[in-house]
Amino acid sequence: MRRAMADEDIDALLVTHLPDVRWLCGFTGSNAAVAVTSKKAVLFTDGRYTTQAREETRGARVVIAKKSALRECCALLSESARRAWFDPQHTAVADLPLMRAGVSGKKSRGFFIALRQPLVSALRMVKDESELRLMGEAAALGCTLFEELMPGIESGKTEVALAAELEFAARQRGAAGMSFETIIASGPRSALPHGHATEAKLPRKGFVTLDFGVILNGYCSDMTRTVHVGDANREEHAAYEAVLEAQETAVSAVKPGATCGEVDKAARDVLEKAGFGKYFTHSTGHGVGLEIHEQPRVAAGQETRLEPGMVITIEPGVYLPGKFGIRIEDMVAVTKTGHRILTPVMKGWIEL
Amino acid sequence: MRRAMADEDIDALLVTHLPDVRWLCGFTGSNAAVAVTSKKAVLFTDGRYTTQAREETRGARVVIAKKSALRECCALLSESARRAWFDPQHTAVADLPLMRAGVSGKKSRGFFIALRQPLVSALRMVKDESELRLMGEAAALGCTLFEELMPGIESGKTEVALAAELEFAARQRGAAGMSFETIIASGPRSALPHGHATEAKLPRKGFVTLDFGVILNGYCSDMTRTVHVGDANREEHAAYEAVLEAQETAVSAVKPGATCGEVDKAARDVLEKAGFGKYFTHSTGHGVGLEIHEQPRVAAGQETRLEPGMVITIEPGVYLPGKFGIRIEDMVAVTKTGHRILTPVMKGWIEL
Repeated sequence: MRRAMADEDIDALLVTHLPDVRWLCGFTGSNAAVAVTSKKAVLFTDGRYTTQAREETRGARVVIAKKSALRECCALLSESARRAWFDPQHTAVADLPLMRAGVSGKKSRGFFIALRQPLVSALRMVKDESELRLMGEAAALGCTLFEELMPGIESGKTEVALAAELEFAARQRGAAGMSFETIIASGPRSALPHGHATEAKLPRKGFVTLDFGVILNGYCSDMTRTVHVGDANREEHAAYEAVLEAQETAVSAVKPGATCGEVDKAARDVLEKAGFGKYFTHSTGHGVGLEIHEQPRVAAGQETRLEPGMVITIEPGVYLPGKFGIRIEDMVAVTKTGHRILTPVMKGWIEL
Repeated sequence: MRRAMADEDIDALLVTHLPDVRWLCGFTGSNAAVAVTSKKAVLFTDGRYTTQAREETRGARVVIAKKSALRECCALLSESARRAWFDPQHTAVADLPLMRAGVSGKKSRGFFIALRQPLVSALRMVKDESELRLMGEAAALGCTLFEELMPGIESGKTEVALAAELEFAARQRGAAGMSFETIIASGPRSALPHGHATEAKLPRKGFVTLDFGVILNGYCSDMTRTVHVGDANREEHAAYEAVLEAQETAVSAVKPGATCGEVDKAARDVLEKAGFGKYFTHSTGHGVGLEIHEQPRVAAGQETRLEPGMVITIEPGVYLPGKFGIRIEDMVAVTKTGHRILTPVMKGWIEL
């Protein structure tokens, strides 16, 4: 990060977004502000974390703030540098006065400068070897859970009961929790792209979309499979085939140098051609890592170029309101020569 | 809310904090901006939520934004009012340019004004009858889960396995999930106020702190109990008695008109007197509702006065680094005449 700071002529940086803090120095508490200069790195937190901060933090000195961790962190920055940069995407407007109050009088005007481009989250896009290993483990756990869950996908069972089984198994296998509220959307509810599991019963006939992720060793997994219970009609088959082709085409487009917009377009073109374009109402994917949604966005027009080490989701879907919906999602790591699917579990038509 | 806006001379308000949006109009999606004036209320979201937004939203017109929900919402505000207020605590610095870009040219300078006091979260502090009923149900589920879990608290079992059992039962009984990552901290780990469940095994002898909450019908519960496995020594008994007395004393102080600072002091004074003052390293509690941490803060010096309908936690604790920790927490509703404990499950000494 100091290299990136030097490249951008940034002498001093305030880091407060918790996943950034964790990525930088390992601390996982819920209150933290880190001051980074070319010479120093100091983590400020509060008295709840006295023991935990000392155990977890690497590469930064730990200070337990008497009152406001943020304010004391800003005071240190103002003693150490002439100006300091902060991340406007993860700083509340209401924090600005507190930040300025920490800066000694004569410097406070113009001391803080908003980063024009996110710095830590840009670095976090590219995962190193050990992160890729941890993310592979999280993704593999997701696959195992799906395979084990499949025999339990039975008409008459509630979506919530199925989610409970999934989450229990995740916990038993070491997950700290789910990376987002589990989506199990069955029958006509599958047309809701974000249909959380409800008391609705799985139908005798129809799709069931399962979109879920675990948090393992701090890293998030994310995958979606859509299975069919009972006999399907021609329209359902056609839509499934279109989504699958769109998904596989977009995955094939993942390689170093490709833009995120190109990957999105690869999926979108297939669905347009199949006549489902207007039913694909969201973007194709997103980065994933310590957070479930990270940089880059895999959406129309996005010019970020893929680099080895990035991990993104590829998750096109088709939603016919009142009828059914289908989404298929993999986690995909960008490699030097192309890509590697981290969630290689069956995604062809599954009829239960 | 319109009454509160009129009282403060606020003609138009931008609401973007998701729990505020849900509280105002019922929408639960992950992207929303609501414009509220004396005449209009319009919710902007994106294409992922076309169906869901129409199903859930009450009291506001729904618009599916073509690009940015926030920007289109600001454009509507600028057509409807001369100025608009926003919540600086829940608005990122980076959103300000986007908000201004939505406002037509001549108005953009000075159109947005930061609220000096939070408006929606201040209203949300006081729960109405139906909210109190839902919160009572969430809290009661927490109690049931604790009672059912107790026979399973056995030395040798891992903290995570115990958490998995708890969370599975929560899901089976209708919880949408946990309101925060379950804290199960055993033996010397109980001295970590925020020790999430790990692979550590419950000891033959020592404390086990369980701090957990469910999300039921959108509302969060929050409770903590600390039980002892095996024989305890005199210091452990003394510390437990002190924390229990502090907790009960603070609960007794909960009534309309009391300040949050007074409630905090009630707990703190007991622990000071018992010689544990410096081991009580956090505040006494916090508001709870749609979010796990809400207004008011129950901390030293806080001058917010309790009112009937507020729901707060009372959770003093004592943490002896390397040795043990104890915390006892109830959810308490302020009533017209005093208070009602929403988590009335045993909190005397429990030895398993």
